[in-house]
Amino acid sequence: MVLPNPSVLEVFENQHPGRNYTIEIVCPEFTSVCPKTGQPDFGTLTITYTPDTTCVELKSLKLYLQAFRNEGIFYEEVTNRILDELVGALAPRKMKLVAAFTSRGGISTTVTAIHEAVG
Amino acid sequence: MVLPNPSVLEVFENQHPGRNYTIEIVCPEFTSVCPKTGQPDFGTLTITYTPDTTCVELKSLKLYLQAFRNEGIFYEEVTNRILDELVGALAPRKMKLVAAFTSRGGISTTVTAIHEAVG
Amino acid sequence: MVLPNPSVLEVFENQHPGRNYTIEIVCPEFTSVCPKTGQPDFGTLTITYTPDTTCVELKSLKLYLQAFRNEGIFYEEVTNRILDELVGALAPRKMKLVAAFTSRGGISTTVTAIHEAVG
Amino acid sequence: MVLPNPSVLEVFENQHPGRNYTIEIVCPEFTSVCPKTGQPDFGTLTITYTPDTTCVELKSLKLYLQAFRNEGIFYEEVTNRILDELVGALAPRKMKLVAAFTSRGGISTTVTAIHEAVG
Amino acid sequence: MVLPNPSVLEVFENQHPGRNYTIEIVCPEFTSVCPKTGQPDFGTLTITYTPDTTCVELKSLKLYLQAFRNEGIFYEEVTNRILDELVGALAPRKMKLVAAFTSRGGISTTVTAIHEAVG
Amino acid sequence: MVLPNPSVLEVFENQHPGRNYTIEIVCPEFTSVCPKTGQPDFGTLTITYTPDTTCVELKSLKLYLQAFRNEGIFYEEVTNRILDELVGALAPRKMKLVAAFTSRGGISTTVTAIHEAVG
Amino acid sequence: MVLPNPSVLEVFENQHPGRNYTIEIVCPEFTSVCPKTGQPDFGTLTITYTPDTTCVELKSLKLYLQAFRNEGIFYEEVTNRILDELVGALAPRKMKLVAAFTSRGGISTTVTAIHEAVG
Amino acid sequence: MVLPNPSVLEVFENQHPGRNYTIEIVCPEFTSVCPKTGQPDFGTLTITYTPDTTCVELKSLKLYLQAFRNEGIFYEEVTNRILDELVGALAPRKMKLVAAFTSRGGISTTVTAIHEAVG
Amino acid sequence: MVLPNPSVLEVFENQHPGRNYTIEIVCPEFTSVCPKTGQPDFGTLTITYTPDTTCVELKSLKLYLQAFRNEGIFYEEVTNRILDELVGALAPRKMKLVAAFTSRGGISTTVTAIHEAVG
Amino acid sequence: MVLPNPSVLEVFENQHPGRNYTIEIVCPEFTSVCPKTGQPDFGTLTITYTPDTTCVELKSLKLYLQAFRNEGIFYEEVTNRILDELVGALAPRKMKLVAAFTSRGGISTTVTAIHEAVG
Repeated sequence: MVLPNPSVLEVFENQHPGRNYTIEIVCPEFTSVCPKTGQPDFGTLTITYTPDTTCVELKSLKLYLQAFRNEGIFYEEVTNRILDELVGALAPRKMKLVAAFTSRGGISTTVTAIHEAVG
Repeated sequence: MVLPNPSVLEVFENQHPGRNYTIEIVCPEFTSVCPKTGQPDFGTLTITYTPDTTCVELKSLKLYLQAFRNEGIFYEEVTNRILDELVGALAPRKMKLVAAFTSRGGISTTVTAIHEAVG
Repeated sequence: MVLPNPSVLEVFENQHPGRNYTIEIVCPEFTSVCPKTGQPDFGTLTITYTPDTTCVELKSLKLYLQAFRNEGIFYEEVTNRILDELVGALAPRKMKLVAAFTSRGGISTTVTAIHEAVG
Repeated sequence: MVLPNPSVLEVFENQHPGRNYTIEIVCPEFTSVCPKTGQPDFGTLTITYTPDTTCVELKSLKLYLQAFRNEGIFYEEVTNRILDELVGALAPRKMKLVAAFTSRGGISTTVTAIHEAVG
Repeated sequence: MVLPNPSVLEVFENQHPGRNYTIEIVCPEFTSVCPKTGQPDFGTLTITYTPDTTCVELKSLKLYLQAFRNEGIFYEEVTNRILDELVGALAPRKMKLVAAFTSRGGISTTVTAIHEAVG
Repeated sequence: MVLPNPSVLEVFENQHPGRNYTIEIVCPEFTSVCPKTGQPDFGTLTITYTPDTTCVELKSLKLYLQAFRNEGIFYEEVTNRILDELVGALAPRKMKLVAAFTSRGGISTTVTAIHEAVG
Repeated sequence: MVLPNPSVLEVFENQHPGRNYTIEIVCPEFTSVCPKTGQPDFGTLTITYTPDTTCVELKSLKLYLQAFRNEGIFYEEVTNRILDELVGALAPRKMKLVAAFTSRGGISTTVTAIHEAVG
Repeated sequence: MVLPNPSVLEVFENQHPGRNYTIEIVCPEFTSVCPKTGQPDFGTLTITYTPDTTCVELKSLKLYLQAFRNEGIFYEEVTNRILDELVGALAPRKMKLVAAFTSRGGISTTVTAIHEAVG
Repeated sequence: MVLPNPSVLEVFENQHPGRNYTIEIVCPEFTSVCPKTGQPDFGTLTITYTPDTTCVELKSLKLYLQAFRNEGIFYEEVTNRILDELVGALAPRKMKLVAAFTSRGGISTTVTAIHEAVG
Repeated sequence: MVLPNPSVLEVFENQHPGRNYTIEIVCPEFTSVCPKTGQPDFGTLTITYTPDTTCVELKSLKLYLQAFRNEGIFYEEVTNRILDELVGALAPRKMKLVAAFTSRGGISTTVTAIHEAVG
């Protein structure tokens, strides 16, 4: 079974670094596993970023996210980890990740985290 | 019968204290009992917080909230008490609690309270 | 703690037995407990009936339904039991009960049962 | 205080008895009093009828319905009583009354009754 | 002041009498006067008909309907009168008139009448 | 200025005459001129037909419909004329034309006509 | 018959005076009587306040508002009077009252008044 | 026929001049006549004001507005005239009038005017 | 890794076999794997059945469905297999399964299958 | 450049030929070329069928449909051709194809065709 690994993320050169523009990626089929109960979790990830010198290649992003399928991980951790690993791979000028998970036991949770490049 | 007790709240370490991020938790199945009439009350709680060093574990939050099921308590008190007990357990940087209760006698009520950490 | 008991159901005389008319009662705040997990269940009951000689008094119906609050009972059983106990108390010409429960573990369930008087 | 009295209902001659046509009257501001609790009830009445020789004058209908304002009466009784009294005053070829009352104690009720002239 | 008069209705020859087709005309700006209170009434008329040998010219229809502006007339009478006068002018194969009046004293009324040609 | 002329309608051979299938064409930008006032009219035409041996070529249909732009013509006439001219050009097994015109003087009109082939 | 009287308003101690929080109460079933016509008025009251040392008990608020049922009073007066009487009973830090009344004679009215504590 | 005349406007004493509060009145049934074509116009008037020493009595406002029913007057004129006459009768601290008229010849118009008291 | 196995399905005795009633279960979080591409599939299963002597226990149904998480299987096969295995475990009087899968390569698919007991 | 060719359609054995079940496939990204203007056309294809001994493999269906990308073909022809070629490859018990094309020159078109197996 494949483990989630940011090294599968491929990037390509941003041909327009002179412009601050925005890329929004919506992934409504994210699934991982609750580390306490072993039950599957389901959520929608929305990634919004301003590229600096590189953009993420979308098929590699899909494979990277699919690898969480059997990973036991908390909502807060998976949100921050994916943000960190995307920031590590892309060094974007700005990136926001909103992770909205479906209801469990009558409770639904949304985690929102933002990274901004320094300087 | 279980009484509501913040000691059932479990926390886990926030792995990303260097980042101010937001966790929103929606609980549309909250129920308690009116202390005047003994009749059940129903409401939706929306908790929004920025963690400092700890996050609340969701299953323990569910059990904590379920324990109000047979508790006689006013809307205003339950809103402030849950906010206080969550603040006591989590010491968040900021937390907001919106409690929207269903209609009783043709009157519906929403209580909103906010905590911000000092310094 | 009060146990659910159809003897709390009060009826009053149908003043218009010569007419087949319909009464629809919607209870969006029904709650009971899962007999397997001990977790609370929430649902909306819709009762539709044609009275024969008696109608159900609504406050007593509310108290009867509230008594399921701490009762451990399956969805299928609670639906048929409430239908049977209302039929026992009212002897209606026809009665339908639709019980729509909220999601548990990503699964939501609706049970529908109908009684028709013989002859 | 005015008591509800069908004698206040005024009718005028249906100028077109040769035609079966339909009059629908919606009254979203009906209010009466619960005979058990003394609390006010609120509902929407929808009257649909085919006139025979007379039509109901609307201002007198409004006054007739307003007189229930302080009357203690069950939902089922008020629905059938208004239907009976309108039928008594108008002798319509067909009349339907749908009375949809707002939520009380988390329970909302709709009563539907129909009259059809014999022969 | 102009009185409503069906003689203002102009018709033109239906060039296609061999075909049963349908014309629907919606007039949301109809206004007349209550004969009891002298207050203005407002409503939407929807006329649907199958022409026989003539069609109604729309500008003349507008003028015909506008002439009710200061006419004191009951809802039921105005609906049937307009239907009758249009039938008189057009002799359609079938015509339906739905007149939906706005709320007065918290009560709103819709009158529906249908004419079908004999034989 | 071009006059509306069905000879501009081009058809192509229906390659599948052995099958009864349906073609629906919606033209929300139809405009002609009122023959009484000289004012422009606007409407949406919906043509639905089952072809026999020929189908209408859409660009020629567009040009045919556009030629009504400065034509003074009643709603009823334009609907039946277009239906007749399309039937003349295509000889379809069945065709329906719904012409919904926008409000003029507070009155809006929809004309619906159907053709079915004989035998 | 009960007259509206602020002395029926019960308050309870605000357990959390150190926090500025908000209570919104929506009453869609308010009714009073027009002092000119004697006809009933219907409206929705929305009360929003920040408590100081006391909160209003909701059942007593319901009874206080219900007592206007047979009171002849103008929209503007009832709005300001209820605001004044609630301010008198609660001495809140801030309170807003929005009273939206249903249509009468084709005219609907909303009155909005705000109180802020001095100092 | 009644001509529009501000002398029919009745006022009553504002019992709460110490408070700046807002009264919004919506009249969706305003109608007057176009001075060029003689055709009726229809619109929705929204009056919003802060009273000083007097408030407008609503029934008299209704009668005042109804008197425009047969008045030939342009949109811009009617809006400013009603604002001026209400200001003359009420001397409000502030008043806004928004008059939104329905479509004529495919064109709809909204006129907005504001008065603010000096000093 | 758990393989999907109908032996995990638990049933409990239908306490009301004398009544034909309906149970509808909606599972919006079904996921399996495409046997051709190895990519995950996502869908919503809606199971509707009339029980005979047994009902399915919902937690065991959830575990049974979750075991398809890493199973490579076509849409058509998974729909019919789940229907067959539920029929094998429950022997219902009637059961319908609608499986609506999300878009893959721009194409989305819904499979519907029905079982009815013989005799 | 690939030409559309039904030989790329792959089928797999229907494992459940004893059951009449339904498969609905929605392709909102179909594109071909207008044979008259050379302009691209866009549409949504909805294929609904009951399989007999074979089902269509979805990836091969996607490739088959994609091959129309540079094909000059009329709406009516492409609908019937795809239906015929799918029927040829699958021999289904029943199949319906609805092709809804986007607006061109202000005109939008939908073609619907059905195949039913003989005997």
